[in-house]
Amino acid sequence: MAVYTEVSDDDLRAFVARYDIGDVVACKGIAEGVENSNYLLQTDRGSYILTLYEKRVARADLPFFLGLMEHLAANGFACPTPLRDRTGEALGDLCDRPAAIISFLHGMWPRRISTRHCTEVGGAMARMHLAGAGFNLKRANALSVPGWRPLFEQSAPRADEVNTCLRDTLASELDHLEANWPNALPDGVIHADMFPDNVFFLDGVLSGVIDFYFACNDFFAYDIAVCLNAWCFEPDRSFNVTKARQLLTGYQAERPISPAELEALPILARGSALRFLLTRLYDWLNTPDGALVKPKDPMEFLVKLQFHQQVNGPGAYGLGWSD
Amino acid sequence: MAVYTEVSDDDLRAFVARYDIGDVVACKGIAEGVENSNYLLQTDRGSYILTLYEKRVARADLPFFLGLMEHLAANGFACPTPLRDRTGEALGDLCDRPAAIISFLHGMWPRRISTRHCTEVGGAMARMHLAGAGFNLKRANALSVPGWRPLFEQSAPRADEVNTCLRDTLASELDHLEANWPNALPDGVIHADMFPDNVFFLDGVLSGVIDFYFACNDFFAYDIAVCLNAWCFEPDRSFNVTKARQLLTGYQAERPISPAELEALPILARGSALRFLLTRLYDWLNTPDGALVKPKDPMEFLVKLQFHQQVNGPGAYGLGWSD
Repeated sequence: MAVYTEVSDDDLRAFVARYDIGDVVACKGIAEGVENSNYLLQTDRGSYILTLYEKRVARADLPFFLGLMEHLAANGFACPTPLRDRTGEALGDLCDRPAAIISFLHGMWPRRISTRHCTEVGGAMARMHLAGAGFNLKRANALSVPGWRPLFEQSAPRADEVNTCLRDTLASELDHLEANWPNALPDGVIHADMFPDNVFFLDGVLSGVIDFYFACNDFFAYDIAVCLNAWCFEPDRSFNVTKARQLLTGYQAERPISPAELEALPILARGSALRFLLTRLYDWLNTPDGALVKPKDPMEFLVKLQFHQQVNGPGAYGLGWSD
Repeated sequence: MAVYTEVSDDDLRAFVARYDIGDVVACKGIAEGVENSNYLLQTDRGSYILTLYEKRVARADLPFFLGLMEHLAANGFACPTPLRDRTGEALGDLCDRPAAIISFLHGMWPRRISTRHCTEVGGAMARMHLAGAGFNLKRANALSVPGWRPLFEQSAPRADEVNTCLRDTLASELDHLEANWPNALPDGVIHADMFPDNVFFLDGVLSGVIDFYFACNDFFAYDIAVCLNAWCFEPDRSFNVTKARQLLTGYQAERPISPAELEALPILARGSALRFLLTRLYDWLNTPDGALVKPKDPMEFLVKLQFHQQVNGPGAYGLGWSD
């Protein structure tokens, strides 16, 4: 739930005048997203998203994110694209922040996940992986293995305040992942945060994917592992193997998952669970009382991590070798 | 910054199907308003506001609020109106809450107040007071004099935590207002909360007024006094008498302010300042740490109260008898 920056009507009008999109008729802050300030901007020609990039997004990364959205859309992937102003720029400044106007994507993110959603999201992820080919900018995944230990060390002294023995659990998991992380799998541009609130549906059909602000170059199968964590656990934290199977089947229909990728899924799923556990733990310990954004419960991802620690192979995700 | 209730896509679709407004294509929570959950709902036919009434709004008051919006709009006042479903109902249920779909009002509320805005809002308030004539429901102002003492008593024990001697200041002001409050002034339906975030403008011209959830029957001049507090103080808390004069002049152009009403303005302005001071103080002391809504600083209204305590007559508001 965001909107950190209040944009005055005068500043807004001046900013919008740089684009060929008509006159502003309404602009309302959106209570979604935690990294940026987002407004639903309406002009006499249509609806748009106005995004002001707050300090958690590095300005140097913005050409990658905005360029990726343009590249994916140009290659047929359903996602919003930044508009270019009359001088051809996609990125401007508003209220002393980098800002962009993004096309509006119809649809809503699903609050109650069905197996059908999982099939669709698997297919969309594969299409994104394919559509990213040829994008000429690179961005390392700052939240993969090398980023986890520094993040762990910042939270370690207070980790046991959140859950008994959490510090030791995290330390030994980190040792295991550093020692066993795969080093040669098919890679390319991944979304890295394809949670339900970033995937829109209209009448049960996926209408597009938003929020590319964690996108980076990494293993495709790591992105799939993020999706397993994001889509296949029930609200009671149990794992729904049918949803996992549907997600993988949906993916496979667009891009085959290689035997090596399938074999790596359990460790990639552990790594992905640890990644969200560490960032949520950091936010949990460092969000000031009374902050506008309520931190999410890190323990949800401890349960997910423990699930993946106990699986005895990729068959646990519903898709056997023989499929 | 609100949105307390998450509406699932299935529940939303079922609710919207009761109305003749087409199919949902988007629905986003709005980060504005503190009493209710508001969504900007888009269908293939247009934009609407979906409001879920949270516990601070009494269900029994909703027919007054929704009926008033219809009545005002039917009498030419620019404000949103509730849509009626196929059975003629303006009020439904969604996620176990009363809910309504309201027409969408173009415009934005002004972040930086100009004298021109003040002229416009004065005129709009007068037009609302006139348009309210003939509305057949009544609602007492729960936040006028009889409501202040109970509110004060709930905060009194801890008032001095917020500001030195605040408890004594409030107690003596309350005594003064109870003893001197006018009892016979022109009355009718008032908005009672016409702050800048409830008044929309397009290109400097007022496009309409929203949020009638404090509307009630009370003195028209009390509503004017609320506006003086809401529009005529600068961000540094100094009083801008030019803005006050413009506001009153704008009002007078539509509905004459009687000598008795003008004479009562200082005490009504004190009462209005105390009303917002008391509700903000209550929220300040009772909002749990980490709540989604950050309470507003009550001290802003102590400064306003002190200004009105020191004026020596209605001339302080820029409009003399000779005008």
